[in-house]
Amino acid sequence: MSTSRLEAFSDGVFAIAATLLVLELHVPTVGSGPLLALLVEQWPSYAAYVVSFLTIGIIWVNHHAMFTLVRRVDRPLLFLNLLLLLVIGVIPFPTAVVGAWITDAQDAPVAAALLGGVFLIMGLAFAGIWLYAVSHHDLALESLQPAVARSAIPRFTIGNVAYLVGIGVAVVSPLLSLLIYGVVAVYYVFPTLPRAD
Amino acid sequence: MSTSRLEAFSDGVFAIAATLLVLELHVPTVGSGPLLALLVEQWPSYAAYVVSFLTIGIIWVNHHAMFTLVRRVDRPLLFLNLLLLLVIGVIPFPTAVVGAWITDAQDAPVAAALLGGVFLIMGLAFAGIWLYAVSHHDLALESLQPAVARSAIPRFTIGNVAYLVGIGVAVVSPLLSLLIYGVVAVYYVFPTLPRAD
Amino acid sequence: MSTSRLEAFSDGVFAIAATLLVLELHVPTVGSGPLLALLVEQWPSYAAYVVSFLTIGIIWVNHHAMFTLVRRVDRPLLFLNLLLLLVIGVIPFPTAVVGAWITDAQDAPVAAALLGGVFLIMGLAFAGIWLYAVSHHDLALESLQPAVARSAIPRFTIGNVAYLVGIGVAVVSPLLSLLIYGVVAVYYVFPTLPRAD
Amino acid sequence: MSTSRLEAFSDGVFAIAATLLVLELHVPTVGSGPLLALLVEQWPSYAAYVVSFLTIGIIWVNHHAMFTLVRRVDRPLLFLNLLLLLVIGVIPFPTAVVGAWITDAQDAPVAAALLGGVFLIMGLAFAGIWLYAVSHHDLALESLQPAVARSAIPRFTIGNVAYLVGIGVAVVSPLLSLLIYGVVAVYYVFPTLPRAD
Repeated sequence: MSTSRLEAFSDGVFAIAATLLVLELHVPTVGSGPLLALLVEQWPSYAAYVVSFLTIGIIWVNHHAMFTLVRRVDRPLLFLNLLLLLVIGVIPFPTAVVGAWITDAQDAPVAAALLGGVFLIMGLAFAGIWLYAVSHHDLALESLQPAVARSAIPRFTIGNVAYLVGIGVAVVSPLLSLLIYGVVAVYYVFPTLPRAD
Repeated sequence: MSTSRLEAFSDGVFAIAATLLVLELHVPTVGSGPLLALLVEQWPSYAAYVVSFLTIGIIWVNHHAMFTLVRRVDRPLLFLNLLLLLVIGVIPFPTAVVGAWITDAQDAPVAAALLGGVFLIMGLAFAGIWLYAVSHHDLALESLQPAVARSAIPRFTIGNVAYLVGIGVAVVSPLLSLLIYGVVAVYYVFPTLPRAD
Repeated sequence: MSTSRLEAFSDGVFAIAATLLVLELHVPTVGSGPLLALLVEQWPSYAAYVVSFLTIGIIWVNHHAMFTLVRRVDRPLLFLNLLLLLVIGVIPFPTAVVGAWITDAQDAPVAAALLGGVFLIMGLAFAGIWLYAVSHHDLALESLQPAVARSAIPRFTIGNVAYLVGIGVAVVSPLLSLLIYGVVAVYYVFPTLPRAD
Repeated sequence: MSTSRLEAFSDGVFAIAATLLVLELHVPTVGSGPLLALLVEQWPSYAAYVVSFLTIGIIWVNHHAMFTLVRRVDRPLLFLNLLLLLVIGVIPFPTAVVGAWITDAQDAPVAAALLGGVFLIMGLAFAGIWLYAVSHHDLALESLQPAVARSAIPRFTIGNVAYLVGIGVAVVSPLLSLLIYGVVAVYYVFPTLPRAD
C-alpha cells in the first residue's frame, strides 16, 4: 500500500476529531442567567478546545512530515497507525472532561491527568511508528541516513517527558498542566523530523 | 466511474463513522461522584469504542486492498458499496447500545448480539462486493486469476462465522462475544486478499 | 477553478451528512424496559436512516456523473453547488423529525412532508446546476451535445414530481410517502445523465 | 510542504464544520405541541444555519483561490492556517448560541455580537495568511505582482469592517446584524483575489 491512501484516511480522522471538539462547547440554557456571564463561565471549555485543537493540528503536520520520509507501508505499520488514530479519535472525550471538571475543587487533577495521559499515549504511538519505520530499511526512504533518523528521537522524547511532567503537575495545579500541554503543541510547530531531500 | 472516487467517498464514511464513535463516551456529570470512579465505571464504553474503531479501521484497510484488484465500477457495484457504507455508518449506534447495556443483568445479550449482527451484515456486504466484482471479469483486474480470487472466500467466511459464533455466545457471555468481535478485527489485520501485481 | 476541488469538498459534505444520520438513532435508556422491545419501537428512525442515507448516496453518485460532464466551474456554478450542499447538509434534521414524529397520530403528515420538501429542494438545486452548466457552453464538455444534455431533464423531473407526489400523499399516509422517497433513491441508482466519452 | 495537503486538510475542516451545523437544529419533543408550530418557532436556528453555512462555504471558496496563488507553505504559514481552522471549527458554537438566544429580549445582542466576533477573528486570520504569504516572495507565485497582491487588501478590509458594523448594530437590532453577516457572505461570492495566470 502506498503512503498516500494511509495519509488521506489519517487526515480524515485528524480533521474530524479536531472539528468534533466544538460539540463539547454547550449552548447556555435560555433563562438560566445573563448570556455573557454564562459564556464567560465556560472558559475552561474554550481553553481545552484550543489546547486539543492545536495538539491535533500539530500532530497532523508532523504526521505528514513523517510520512514524506516513508516509502512504503506494511501491515504492522498500518496497524500502528490505526492505534495512533484510535487515540486521536478519542481526544474529544478527555477534552470535554477537562472542560467540565477542571474547576472542580476535588477532581480537577484527575481531569487534567486524563488529558495528559491520552496525549502521552498519542506521543508514544507516534514515536512507535517512527521507530518501526526507520528500523525497517525497506520502508523508509533510501535517502534517509540512520544517524539523521535517530536524531529525531530526542525531540519526540521531550514532548513525551513534558506530558509526563504535566500529568505530575496536575496534582498540584491542573491549570498549569493544561498550560504545559499547550506549550508542547506550540513547541512541535517547529520541525521535529529531518527533511526529505 | 473509476474506483478512485468511490474509494475517496468510502474513506470519508469510514473515517467519520470511526471518529463519531467518541461521541458515545459521556462526560460524567460534575457532582455525581468522584471522577475517577465515574470514569472507571464506563469501561464497557471504552471496550466497545476500541472494538468498533478497530473493526472499521480494518475493514477500511481491506476495502482498499479489495479495490486495488478492481478495475472499473459499474452501477450495481456502486450500489452494493453504498449498502456496505450504510452499515458502516450505523456502527456507532450498536456500539453505544453495547456501552450502555453490556453490564445490564437482563439485556446484555441483546446488546452484544445487536453489535455482532451489524458486524455480520457488514461482513456479508463486503463479501458480496468481492463476489460480484470477481464474477464480472470486465470489472476485476485482468491479472487476477479466478482461482486466486476464490481463494479469498474462506477468509471472508471465517470472519462471518466468527460473528455468528459471537452472536450465539452473547446469550451465555456478552463480554466474551465482545472479545470475539475484537479478535476478528485483529485477525483481519493480516491480508485477506491476493495481491495486485 | 477546476471541478476536482469542488467535487472533493462536495464529497466531504455528502459523506459527513450521510454519516451524521446515525446520531439521530438514540440509545434506549437503561431500565426503561426490555432492550429488544425498545429497539424495535424505534423502527421509524431506522427506516428514515435508510431512506436518507440512500438518497444522499445516490445524489453523490449522480453529482459525480454530472461533474464528469462539466469542464470548468465559474462563480455562479460554485454558488449553486453551495446551495445544494446547504440542503444536503440539513437532511439529518428532517430525517430525525421523521424518526420521532412519523408514528404521531396527529402530526406524522407534517414530518413526512418536511422530509419530502427538503428532498424536493435538493432535487431542484441539482437540476438547477445541470441547467446552468449545460446552458453555458464554456462550462460543459465540448463533446456534450445539447440534445443529449436536454435528454436528462425528463429524468430529473420524474424525481421531483415523485417528491411532490410524496408530499401530497403524506396527508393520507405518511409511511407511504416515506416509501415513495425510498423508491426515488432506488430509481436514481440507474444512470440519469449521458456518459462522458 | 506542498499546498495541496494543507488544502485537503483545510477542506476537511471546512466541510465538517459546515455539516456539523445541522446538529444545532433540534427535533421538537413529541407531545410538546403541534409539529408545524414547533418547527416554525425555530426559525432563528434556520437563519443562523444558512448564514454560517454560506460563510464557511464562501471562505472555503476564497481559501482555495488564495492557495492557488501560494507556491510553498512554511511553518509559520502552516500555523497561521491552523489558527484559521481553529476559528472555522468553532463556528457551530456561536451559531447555536444565536439560534437559541436571538429572540431573547435581554441577551439577543450578546448572541449576535458573539457570532460577529467569531466571523471577525476568522476574517482577520484569513487576511493575516494573505499578508504573510505575499510579503514572503519565496512563498507566493512568481507571476503574482506585488501591486496586484495589495489590491486584494481593500476587499478583505470591507468584510472585516462589515463584521465590526454588524457587532455594533447588534446592540440596536440583533436580527439586522445577522442580516449583515449574511450579506457579507454573498458579497464574497464575487472574487476577492487576483487570478493565477
